[in-house]
Amino acid sequence: MSAESIRVPAILEKKRDGHALSKAEIDFLIAGYTRGDVPDYQMAAFAMAVYFRGMSDGETTDLTRAMLYSGEVLDLSELDGPKVDKHSTGGVGDKTSLILAPLVAACGAYVPMISGRALAHSGGTLDKLESIPGFRVGLSLDEFRATLRKHRVSFIGQTKEIAPADKKLYALRDVTATVPCLPLITASIMGKKLSEGIDALILDVKTGDGAFMQRYEDSIALAERMVAIGKGMGKRVAAVITDMNEPTGLMVGNSLEIEESIQALRGEGPKDLVDLSVELSAWMLVLTGLQPNLDAGRAKVREALSSGAGLEIFRRVIEAQGGDPRVCDDPSLLPHAAKRHEIRTETAGFLARCGCRAIGEASMLLGAGRDTVADAVDPGVGIVLAGKVGDGVERGGLLATLHYNDEARLARALARLTDAFAVSEMQPERPPLVLKVIE
Amino acid sequence: MSAESIRVPAILEKKRDGHALSKAEIDFLIAGYTRGDVPDYQMAAFAMAVYFRGMSDGETTDLTRAMLYSGEVLDLSELDGPKVDKHSTGGVGDKTSLILAPLVAACGAYVPMISGRALAHSGGTLDKLESIPGFRVGLSLDEFRATLRKHRVSFIGQTKEIAPADKKLYALRDVTATVPCLPLITASIMGKKLSEGIDALILDVKTGDGAFMQRYEDSIALAERMVAIGKGMGKRVAAVITDMNEPTGLMVGNSLEIEESIQALRGEGPKDLVDLSVELSAWMLVLTGLQPNLDAGRAKVREALSSGAGLEIFRRVIEAQGGDPRVCDDPSLLPHAAKRHEIRTETAGFLARCGCRAIGEASMLLGAGRDTVADAVDPGVGIVLAGKVGDGVERGGLLATLHYNDEARLARALARLTDAFAVSEMQPERPPLVLKVIE
Repeated sequence: MSAESIRVPAILEKKRDGHALSKAEIDFLIAGYTRGDVPDYQMAAFAMAVYFRGMSDGETTDLTRAMLYSGEVLDLSELDGPKVDKHSTGGVGDKTSLILAPLVAACGAYVPMISGRALAHSGGTLDKLESIPGFRVGLSLDEFRATLRKHRVSFIGQTKEIAPADKKLYALRDVTATVPCLPLITASIMGKKLSEGIDALILDVKTGDGAFMQRYEDSIALAERMVAIGKGMGKRVAAVITDMNEPTGLMVGNSLEIEESIQALRGEGPKDLVDLSVELSAWMLVLTGLQPNLDAGRAKVREALSSGAGLEIFRRVIEAQGGDPRVCDDPSLLPHAAKRHEIRTETAGFLARCGCRAIGEASMLLGAGRDTVADAVDPGVGIVLAGKVGDGVERGGLLATLHYNDEARLARALARLTDAFAVSEMQPERPPLVLKVIE
Repeated sequence: MSAESIRVPAILEKKRDGHALSKAEIDFLIAGYTRGDVPDYQMAAFAMAVYFRGMSDGETTDLTRAMLYSGEVLDLSELDGPKVDKHSTGGVGDKTSLILAPLVAACGAYVPMISGRALAHSGGTLDKLESIPGFRVGLSLDEFRATLRKHRVSFIGQTKEIAPADKKLYALRDVTATVPCLPLITASIMGKKLSEGIDALILDVKTGDGAFMQRYEDSIALAERMVAIGKGMGKRVAAVITDMNEPTGLMVGNSLEIEESIQALRGEGPKDLVDLSVELSAWMLVLTGLQPNLDAGRAKVREALSSGAGLEIFRRVIEAQGGDPRVCDDPSLLPHAAKRHEIRTETAGFLARCGCRAIGEASMLLGAGRDTVADAVDPGVGIVLAGKVGDGVERGGLLATLHYNDEARLARALARLTDAFAVSEMQPERPPLVLKVIE
């Protein structure tokens, strides 16, 4: 054992017994873990102790900072405008990043976007982008910086330089039943996002069946914690709580979501997707100070949408990152699954349930996600919904079309969708776009 | 990751959320851990979750059984008499094992004794035995069996065949702040002891300043749990709670404790040590059914003591395990420290405090214990007390003599003993030999 691992039990004991850890203790633990001197088994015990004992806002800030400074923190002060990003806690069909990043860039901000991969039933921005032929998400930090400087947007994955402690701890939590732990979630998200060298951040905290946090109160608690930590670290941060009881937009899958994002940037996207993208973009413009209020922000973003300025930036970023920009005009250049299977309803009425988690999981079962980190995703597969909750449906009407390549996978996906859809006589109410704002 | 480690998170989650684990889940976890398929980090998270959520008696029995069957369980049914052992939760100067094993053997039982090494401020039976020139505790299981068959007693350490899961988990708990956890302690002790193939077991659960469990209620809780688990596994088990606010006997250290054990077996030992050894021996004879009640047991053991039958067996076991049996007649053959340092009192009165933990730690600082598992112990060093709590002392009278080899170590030991002794005007009461019996 290293000298570090010998001092660790006293720190674990302190947390286990419900005492607050000092900044020095948290720094010692995370720095040792990053170097490999503190072994996984001590961090696993730490994570479980934090699960039971929690952490104060002060401790969580120290942990976030320790995660952040476990690796490289981008200094983007060379750029002549504000830097802003969005983080979503993950959902199904949630492709707003792909739409808002070019829109906000078109409105004058820089968007240095570090994204993730598909996880459980949620899609990943990186996997979606990689369905564009040639698109490279594995840019070096220098390439990322250059793309950002030139086009105001760049998309990459978490590199080995960025928050390496988070990368290790995240993988460890996944296999030690310590994922649903507020301070650890907060430090993980904020440590990663703040390493981007941003001035401001909008948090889209999902709630409901398809969200990471299914209960409304848990979503609020997470949002409050993240906003507090971000502000404590000198950033302009706000959170919106949004509904994830049905997928965002109509398309779920990798290339399908690129296709729908392009539709949205052309002004032809489904209303819920476009509205949410505009709302988050407006927040980003307000938080950076580029626009005085949300109404002005919304107007500015709608302008970038109708003028095609957002689409133009997306086209250029695709090209800059090695992708084929012609997909913006011709979606047939994107990979597509070979076969289609339609799900229809026996009853006429209104679509009352469009089970979000089931649809996310079914899409993963078709091949849009991974069973293990080593697996490749199938870019063309996914699910296209015929309508949203509250829409009228006729007897025998289409509910969804599954795009698939493999019959066995189709069977598993269909089994998962058994209870996903419900049609009722009464028209259900639609939830508001934003359930709550936390500033 | 192995197939096992993938199923583990669901088990961890169940325990984390306060549900009872099934026998199949516990078996799966421990078997996987023993094979190395379940990694340390998952077991560390498990141990911390159990720390917070506890385990029912049923779960603890299943865990004990899983530990037990993680390795070899001795089958001693070939022996023509009952097999019985004693377990102590550890203390200072606690050498009763060395005395009661030969005494109980002389009274007709077999005593297959698997012991441990010095830990924290507590001495270890194996380290004490190894101070006898030539004595081998590392017998093979076959040699152990042969010695036992011939002399009715044999002493060995935990081999790699015996409860390997416990060996791994114990080391892991030590560095993950999960030692003080009742179900894990219980399973560790009982899993190891029951692998000896015994019919009966007396538990000496220490309480007070020098004990592993310092609080009386905690000692009772541990004793109750162990008795319940032992009985649940079909063994005859009882526990006595005994005082550990001062060392047992007058000598603390490795060869010093061998010397005092031999004194006791000659009928010349200090009263508290002899009485406790006789009491535990009597319990062992009652639990095995060799004697009908404690009074008869005590009488039988006193007989083996005064006849020298116990000492004779000890002599033969020493010889059988490669040691020099002449130490039983000539203690000068045992290793001794080169130097002496006396601690004397300024006040006359009665010895009111003889700080047990401090004396244990001071003895370890002199070299009787280890800083790391790789260190060797110094067999000759230790502390000889001049009297027990309640004894009268004169002004300038001797309290203790430190046996040492190294001046720097002496200085550290003396620093630890600053407040170890107190003399008062009033004669303090002596605690009873046995505070409570749990059957």
